[in-house]
Amino acid sequence: MKKSFGANTLIYPTPVWCVGSYDVHGRPNVMTIAWGGICCSKPPAVTISLRKNRYTYDNIVGRGAYTLSVPGENHAAEADFFGIASGKKTDKFKTTGLTPVRSDIVDAPYVAEFPMVLECKVIHTFDIGAHTQFVGEILDVKVDESVLDADGKPDIEKIRPIVFSPEASRYHTVGRMIGEAFSMGKSLNSSRKQPTDEIG
Amino acid sequence: MKKSFGANTLIYPTPVWCVGSYDVHGRPNVMTIAWGGICCSKPPAVTISLRKNRYTYDNIVGRGAYTLSVPGENHAAEADFFGIASGKKTDKFKTTGLTPVRSDIVDAPYVAEFPMVLECKVIHTFDIGAHTQFVGEILDVKVDESVLDADGKPDIEKIRPIVFSPEASRYHTVGRMIGEAFSMGKSLNSSRKQPTDEIG
Repeated sequence: MKKSFGANTLIYPTPVWCVGSYDVHGRPNVMTIAWGGICCSKPPAVTISLRKNRYTYDNIVGRGAYTLSVPGENHAAEADFFGIASGKKTDKFKTTGLTPVRSDIVDAPYVAEFPMVLECKVIHTFDIGAHTQFVGEILDVKVDESVLDADGKPDIEKIRPIVFSPEASRYHTVGRMIGEAFSMGKSLNSSRKQPTDEIG
Repeated sequence: MKKSFGANTLIYPTPVWCVGSYDVHGRPNVMTIAWGGICCSKPPAVTISLRKNRYTYDNIVGRGAYTLSVPGENHAAEADFFGIASGKKTDKFKTTGLTPVRSDIVDAPYVAEFPMVLECKVIHTFDIGAHTQFVGEILDVKVDESVLDADGKPDIEKIRPIVFSPEASRYHTVGRMIGEAFSMGKSLNSSRKQPTDEIG
């Protein structure tokens, strides 16, 4: 039996990403979001959703750019703080001791200490309701060399990104590997075509 | 030092959600996506991104509705299969032995055996590029009673949703709880205001 929870933003997993932006005075700010996701492969693009009253909202509108810094689980407290405090009143970099780095590609800063960074140029802005969705074209992805695997690819088990669970409002780690995508389902249908290895 | 990976849809974590839809003949289909996320709180809404050549694309355009069924890790192989096979040629429910249930709220089916289901009505369709983004208003969330906690709320540790990691193209479990959101960052700034408990 399934229990009904009504009209609700309740689904798992959701991400924990930190949005970097500059304000009108050129001060770096960073806020944490869980409402977002990849939305296109060509151009590579990612969406984030913000309320209009967020300090970051005006920053992104003003500069047409943002970064996403992916915190490792060792920075969960800092990421949580980035979602609690407002850049209107607080220099969140100063308070946490983390370092803003100016992107050389887009007009936005990222968090030096976080292992993975996306630099994004706004290509669409969609008002959905309480939240506005910014679609950012991903111009570069940068990953710490210390979290790459033996083949030089990003290793999720070294990056240790954080999962947010709505309703319970908790952070979780990413756990063990289950299997290979576009592979572990093959045995269910011997007559299927070659997998396309395309998402969506 | 950070290594540059260029313009790429590379970020963690991304979800594993199965999109349920009816085709023009009324046959239930289901496909797996990782490109999507919550995009608004009021109205509660979630986006999914699909290529136009996907069988599900025409289904969603035709019915203006879809469901998201969240597979538990025990159904990772079936979820992977749903992303490999096409509903054009394959009855994916029949092949996997899973059960399509007609939503009584929207014109789409969901997967009975998966522990969490969202029923969505399309309110926006945005062409981004290779992918089209459907924004679905979440009309109801249904969760198996067997995966609720002692307070009757959904328990991510019982639902056991799946995390997808792009590039490596692997599935992972959700791991241990790190801490409470809107709480574990408080100690970093004693002068902060009350947290708003609002996402984005």
